[in-house]
Amino acid sequence: MKATVVVELKPSVLDPQGKAIQHSLSTLGFAGVEDVRVGKLFRITLADIGGQTRDHVESQLRQMCERLLANTVVEHFSYTIEE
Amino acid sequence: MKATVVVELKPSVLDPQGKAIQHSLSTLGFAGVEDVRVGKLFRITLADIGGQTRDHVESQLRQMCERLLANTVVEHFSYTIEE
Repeated sequence: MKATVVVELKPSVLDPQGKAIQHSLSTLGFAGVEDVRVGKLFRITLADIGGQTRDHVESQLRQMCERLLANTVVEHFSYTIEE
Repeated sequence: MKATVVVELKPSVLDPQGKAIQHSLSTLGFAGVEDVRVGKLFRITLADIGGQTRDHVESQLRQMCERLLANTVVEHFSYTIEE
């Protein structure tokens, strides 16, 4: 089973890395770039354990995000699961 | 117009950051995490310039990836466009 987790800064939090990229794109001649925000993406391969419900997997993923992958003070996360 | 660009290491390239996260998840007690790979995600807001075709926007995004966002020697990229 494969899961994709996306962790991004909350909209209210400044993103200096994104601003730097936006500036670089303008310098390179790309017109009309109004905003860039950077996030992290995790592709997680989970062992297929028999009898595991989707609810259980979702709960595991949420815990992974809350305990390790995201700083929920300034970041939010989302995930998708592919069977 | 909003675009989302995902940049990930090619499958053949080692991902020590992903391995460290996989190890940390195991240490935290999450069983059955077989692999973790880390990528970058860019949310790009583009100005709506009249008469711009979707082909043109796609071409711009590809160039942004090739010239700045991705190192195409070791990374591959994909993008989605939301109107």
